[in-house]
Amino acid sequence: MTILETIRGPRDLKALSEADVGRLTEEIREFLVQAVARTGGHLGPNLGVVELSVALHRVFESPVDRIVWDTGHQSYVHKLLTGRQDFSKLRGKGGLSGYPSREESEHDIVENSHASTALGWADGLAKARQVLGEKGHVVAVIGDGALTGGMAWEALNNIAAAKDRPLIVVVNDNERSYAPTIGGLADHLATLRTTDGYERVLAWGKDVLLRTPVVGGTLYESLHGAKKGFKDAFAPQGMFEDLGLKYIGPIDGHDIGAVESALRRAKRFHGPVLVHCLTEKGRGYGPALAHEEDHFHTVGVMDPLTCEPLAPAAAPSWTSVFGEEIAAIGAEREDVVAITAAMLHPVGLGPFAARFPDRVWDVGIAEQHATVSAAGLATGGVHPVVAVYATFLNRAFDQLLMDVALHRCGVTFVLDRAGVTGVDGASHNGMWDMSILQVVPGLRIAAPRDAAQLRAQLREAVAVDDAPTLVRFPKESVGPEIPAVDRIGGLDVLRRDARPQVLLVAVGVMASVCLQAADLLAARGIGCTVVDPRWVKPVDPALPELAARHRLVAVVEDNSRAAGVGSAVALALGDAEVDVPVRRFGIPEQFLAHAGRAEVLADIGLTPVEVAGRIAASLAAGEATDGTVKEKAE
Amino acid sequence: MTILETIRGPRDLKALSEADVGRLTEEIREFLVQAVARTGGHLGPNLGVVELSVALHRVFESPVDRIVWDTGHQSYVHKLLTGRQDFSKLRGKGGLSGYPSREESEHDIVENSHASTALGWADGLAKARQVLGEKGHVVAVIGDGALTGGMAWEALNNIAAAKDRPLIVVVNDNERSYAPTIGGLADHLATLRTTDGYERVLAWGKDVLLRTPVVGGTLYESLHGAKKGFKDAFAPQGMFEDLGLKYIGPIDGHDIGAVESALRRAKRFHGPVLVHCLTEKGRGYGPALAHEEDHFHTVGVMDPLTCEPLAPAAAPSWTSVFGEEIAAIGAEREDVVAITAAMLHPVGLGPFAARFPDRVWDVGIAEQHATVSAAGLATGGVHPVVAVYATFLNRAFDQLLMDVALHRCGVTFVLDRAGVTGVDGASHNGMWDMSILQVVPGLRIAAPRDAAQLRAQLREAVAVDDAPTLVRFPKESVGPEIPAVDRIGGLDVLRRDARPQVLLVAVGVMASVCLQAADLLAARGIGCTVVDPRWVKPVDPALPELAARHRLVAVVEDNSRAAGVGSAVALALGDAEVDVPVRRFGIPEQFLAHAGRAEVLADIGLTPVEVAGRIAASLAAGEATDGTVKEKAE
Repeated sequence: MTILETIRGPRDLKALSEADVGRLTEEIREFLVQAVARTGGHLGPNLGVVELSVALHRVFESPVDRIVWDTGHQSYVHKLLTGRQDFSKLRGKGGLSGYPSREESEHDIVENSHASTALGWADGLAKARQVLGEKGHVVAVIGDGALTGGMAWEALNNIAAAKDRPLIVVVNDNERSYAPTIGGLADHLATLRTTDGYERVLAWGKDVLLRTPVVGGTLYESLHGAKKGFKDAFAPQGMFEDLGLKYIGPIDGHDIGAVESALRRAKRFHGPVLVHCLTEKGRGYGPALAHEEDHFHTVGVMDPLTCEPLAPAAAPSWTSVFGEEIAAIGAEREDVVAITAAMLHPVGLGPFAARFPDRVWDVGIAEQHATVSAAGLATGGVHPVVAVYATFLNRAFDQLLMDVALHRCGVTFVLDRAGVTGVDGASHNGMWDMSILQVVPGLRIAAPRDAAQLRAQLREAVAVDDAPTLVRFPKESVGPEIPAVDRIGGLDVLRRDARPQVLLVAVGVMASVCLQAADLLAARGIGCTVVDPRWVKPVDPALPELAARHRLVAVVEDNSRAAGVGSAVALALGDAEVDVPVRRFGIPEQFLAHAGRAEVLADIGLTPVEVAGRIAASLAAGEATDGTVKEKAE
Repeated sequence: MTILETIRGPRDLKALSEADVGRLTEEIREFLVQAVARTGGHLGPNLGVVELSVALHRVFESPVDRIVWDTGHQSYVHKLLTGRQDFSKLRGKGGLSGYPSREESEHDIVENSHASTALGWADGLAKARQVLGEKGHVVAVIGDGALTGGMAWEALNNIAAAKDRPLIVVVNDNERSYAPTIGGLADHLATLRTTDGYERVLAWGKDVLLRTPVVGGTLYESLHGAKKGFKDAFAPQGMFEDLGLKYIGPIDGHDIGAVESALRRAKRFHGPVLVHCLTEKGRGYGPALAHEEDHFHTVGVMDPLTCEPLAPAAAPSWTSVFGEEIAAIGAEREDVVAITAAMLHPVGLGPFAARFPDRVWDVGIAEQHATVSAAGLATGGVHPVVAVYATFLNRAFDQLLMDVALHRCGVTFVLDRAGVTGVDGASHNGMWDMSILQVVPGLRIAAPRDAAQLRAQLREAVAVDDAPTLVRFPKESVGPEIPAVDRIGGLDVLRRDARPQVLLVAVGVMASVCLQAADLLAARGIGCTVVDPRWVKPVDPALPELAARHRLVAVVEDNSRAAGVGSAVALALGDAEVDVPVRRFGIPEQFLAHAGRAEVLADIGLTPVEVAGRIAASLAAGEATDGTVKEKAE
């Protein structure tokens, strides 16, 4: 039996000898590599926090003490230490979540995978403790990358000022988020990291100053009495102490004794304190350390020795099609620039960056800044392309509306991972964009159905210089080309049956679902017209008239049913006094548990069978209750 | 002729003598007090930036140099100096905007009134300059309050790291936004402000150290050579220099010579630089300085001598009704706590704060933190009430969805200034909340129609401890009570005609518009049912069945027509196979220029006459084209 297998909860950790703790950390690393290679998942970040996780659970008493993990994908070790060692279905249906999950364990608090939230959560938890007079510590673990997000700043500003409210911030500083951390903060952390130099200056300077007599004592004592004393001036606490946080560090995050000692010191401190731990992403696993791009931030199913992917080679991804095309556009137009929020390669901007390094900016985990700086760039005369995962654009809704759209800025947003993403769970699905953005005046939204359309619509988007545009596409590989048989106004007609009863409005990749649903309906004698609107916002003026020639309109989108394209189509029809019934197919108003993308789509009924069945039932209900059917099913 | 009258643009400022500049600033203050007293508007902030605005326009060459005003309500002086001196219709229809406006002047860049954006805009403008190889300075003016917002941090992090990209940040530090600035940053700025002490320590210490010999020179020289040298250690630049920004200050922001000199120094610096100006909100106007709550942040129409309001005394405001009721609830429930984002009094939390000071937090201009810390508070066992203007909640959409709703936290959001606000212009209207929040699983939204309903629904909201709730109400005074004649399911029936053809769904304060529209329709022989759904999300299950007994459903909301309550009602009807035509009345997809609230409502057709007319036309169109009218108009 391994030591890991004997750990059923944090209590079991406390009795371990120093040697056993060392063996445990080795076992955990071995487990992580083997387990994650089998299922895919976040590997590098978890290898980096093995000692930190063990130390946290040895020093604190979870769940009475609250440990909040920022971003959550580095919670695998925490899971192993809190009774969850079956990783066989990690991120799969019915298996462990890839993030903390309250359903899984009382030791888990925050499930949200969006970065920079942990400090705010911790501030709230600590305030609740204070109001209720409860005891117990609150610990937030946050990466240096996540500190570049504005939420972290807002929280630090509040935490630092509350001198009577204990709260422990552990900065897990591995010099990167997905990519190397950027900005003034990263530079400052780098300064803090070089503690040895400062410690030497400190020791030497103190010695000299102690021997320098001034009136009433030594120079050291005099300076020490000044508000910003000698230690404050030369020790590396820097901006955190400037804000009012007690600073402990930097600590070698892989020296478990040092980490425990620092955490114990922090635990005794009756106020806000920051522990600065230096860790290495991918620690202990050669291939991860050797991987420059992201130190195996996430991996697919692979051979743990060779690191060769074991899944079959897929067709090109949507991401790579975008990446190629935007690089080609960049070569043609010198005024096209690109922005990423700490995810240059995952959003496909690698080729663009390689060719035009002076025209691309990584702004940190800072979607707000990505968007507002894009407004400035557009106003300054260039055309920014902001490439981001769909779920993360939610962070920049206000900036898209108030800075970009209000000022009619020509900014193109490119949303990767739109729709159901699946394995990353509830907070990673990109299922809200086409709903919340319906209110944005002047914004044009494209949902391409295939690679050719993505290329074409991206070009149409960047050609618009006086309004925001947005192009959205899903995770997974891109399917075969879907040809249009006709064009009506701006609508691509994908199929037209004789005497059609149903108008299927297929949004983006839902084209194939709609075409298959049309096959099923045709087999029941129900003719369909299938159109791809290409630009789903604004609704094409040709749509109401076309709709009027059908008995039912069905809008199918991989987006929230509430407020989405279906809503916009219904509004346009009502405004045109076209009262053909509209049925909306999309994602129901619920958070979606992790599972494969196809499994999720099946669960929520976004399949040809379900769509066709529901349409047929609706037509039948209409015939049963309404004497006014204009045309019978054949 | 006054000197002010001779200033037709920034160029005219440059020729002025020092004495004339002094007279000009006096004239400007006199003008501001007289003009703003006549129309109402932002007074205190503008009185504080008179010298700063004059100095900026004397030192820089707008519009070639770009001056970006954060939040924008302190741009009145800038307007006076850039050719706009007719303040007679300030914030009124056809008059000057209360914020910068590109339509008004080439000197205006950012119109958005939401705080903390200027640094991001400036970063983008500076990057565009770099890409295009253009010359010219970029200057962002930002208040200390706005620095508490996360966007400011994200921007500083980017600005500080780009050593080769000149950008000037002017911090207008008056120790407050609307309210006194909070947090660790405010404490740090306070430290920086006490420059004299440091300067004295600096001079004295330097003298001593210079006389202290060490190997190879003096101690001063040795320390000076260290990376974080003596001046850096004792001069007050603090965290800004830690981040990598050159720091100049603190400067007396009312000493125009000192400000100009600092700005000229900043202009010569080839990199990112921060100028820290200390100013006084309400400067030069006794009543403003004496006003503790907000130094006359905004005033209504008033007598400039007595400061007595000249507008007729209004009925109680929605805000005050909320303020009373939440204080009453606070007395009954010790677990109810409140959060404000730097607007304690404007959102009505004054009475609550006075009675329960330990249960209310001002988190700064930080809606993200207000919301995420509320999730922490709720998880910690108390019930937070987050009170915020509707337009500012857009900043926290992601946190409401991912932190509050995903974790099923019992947090109550109270949105003041929902719907059309009017005079504050495009970015202050609260017209998006009921649209973007339709996608949030589990969220319940209340739109009370009168004071009694506000009290009742607020209590219903805070009683929900396992899901977020939201109560929204408009600016202006609350109208008379509107009694219900019946209740169907959760719907209050406000009017029921015999043989009704039209179901009017009246959202919140639109109840009176709907009742008047029903009068007009009844006069044409068209009977109506008017219901107030009270909770507009989720749609009440009784609604589809009720709708089925009418020929037309009209949903009237002071919210975007796109994606709002009308969309939700249409979806619910479709899901129930009820295909009664739905017509949506609300705010069209456009930004609304400043004007009085009633003027705006009239312009966009949210009046009884327009609503009734459109409904009648729709019914007539239905009769003309559709042989299937179920019931004729009488």
